[in-house]
Amino acid sequence: MPAIQALVFDVFGTLVDWRNEIARESAPFLARHGRGDIDPIAFAEAWRACYQPSMETVRSGARPYVRLDVLHRENLSTVLAQFGFDEARLDQDELAQLNRGWHRLAAWPDVVPALLRLKTRYILAPMSNGNLSMMVRLARHAGFPWDAVLGAELAGDYKPAAAVYQHGPRALDLPPEAVCMVAAHNGDLRAARECGLSTAFVPRPTEYGPKQTKDFRAEEDWTVVARDFEDLADQLLAR
Amino acid sequence: MPAIQALVFDVFGTLVDWRNEIARESAPFLARHGRGDIDPIAFAEAWRACYQPSMETVRSGARPYVRLDVLHRENLSTVLAQFGFDEARLDQDELAQLNRGWHRLAAWPDVVPALLRLKTRYILAPMSNGNLSMMVRLARHAGFPWDAVLGAELAGDYKPAAAVYQHGPRALDLPPEAVCMVAAHNGDLRAARECGLSTAFVPRPTEYGPKQTKDFRAEEDWTVVARDFEDLADQLLAR
Repeated sequence: MPAIQALVFDVFGTLVDWRNEIARESAPFLARHGRGDIDPIAFAEAWRACYQPSMETVRSGARPYVRLDVLHRENLSTVLAQFGFDEARLDQDELAQLNRGWHRLAAWPDVVPALLRLKTRYILAPMSNGNLSMMVRLARHAGFPWDAVLGAELAGDYKPAAAVYQHGPRALDLPPEAVCMVAAHNGDLRAARECGLSTAFVPRPTEYGPKQTKDFRAEEDWTVVARDFEDLADQLLAR
Repeated sequence: MPAIQALVFDVFGTLVDWRNEIARESAPFLARHGRGDIDPIAFAEAWRACYQPSMETVRSGARPYVRLDVLHRENLSTVLAQFGFDEARLDQDELAQLNRGWHRLAAWPDVVPALLRLKTRYILAPMSNGNLSMMVRLARHAGFPWDAVLGAELAGDYKPAAAVYQHGPRALDLPPEAVCMVAAHNGDLRAARECGLSTAFVPRPTEYGPKQTKDFRAEEDWTVVARDFEDLADQLLAR
């Protein structure tokens, strides 16, 4: 077994609290349009609910790869219609600005201190379904100290497609086991393990708020199972 | 004209002194094999002399894209033969280690302080012919604070092919003029300008030592012409 040399991270849910953060980004938009009746959390959840189905159109081959920014924008149209907005009466620049809310999410508070500690020993990169420019802007906003951006755009597909996990070790010129996927989602880790990557689980039991139904705990014997990012750094730096 | 939002950098020559650094990496190898008669600078220059011809085999379409690490290793075989080594009698691991010398080059002393200042305002990425894993390791060695790795591998071709320059703005989701190519080579900037990028010249009059014949000064009215990286940061941060 080669030692772990690089850590690659799921971003939405694992590093950032998209639900509260997109609610925060959406609230001023809803208020400006006199829609104080809409709970911004419900708006964020509805937007995120379109996420997997929209990526599935790419994973299935029904459409060629397009960036997550593009899917988010299409999904925003869907959600606006669901909440009774007439998009034809909205300003496109305002919607583009709202869509870029996904570039401005704050990290869970345990993340950045742990990444700074881990950076001293490990190569760090996001392995997210977010596109490269989204990952760059999000990292500058949240303070993620990446060595490179990996993930969906470089592989031209969306997780959990094997191509995304396989691309990372190849790009880093490392054996798959030397690359450890870090995620709060057992499904993400299962797909990474099938591609030979090492795996680390950190729970985010409030990612989906009171509606969360899964990923409260590690469902397999992942390479590392941590309580939080501080514990993850402690365990990885003690190896 | 959109404002410059991202700076992309040539690496070999512009950020790192490959000639003295590869000589430093090669000297112990030459000494170990009783070849104190070979000037390590001459060895470094001979290795680098293979660089453009080897990339031309990819640019011309004669062979598909392979990483610069692969070209460097092939070129090392050529150079060893030129200096009278019998490669069959050498240890492959030792040669692989020597080839990774290109991942361990120190930066010119003005580079890192300037990059840290520029990072506060601009997205920073290498736009080098070096592959992604080489750029990651070199950045960790030299302290380059990249936001992402761009360049040859992501475009599947080698500079000055237009595909490499065009890929950067597209990946960053920026208009070409909002991305500024920084290089010590007028030819690199000429090719970047043809793709619509902004351009910045910083001279490295000792890159090739006493044999240097060109790039002592800016040959066109590049967007920015700087004396050194400190001056580059001063000018860009004053815009």
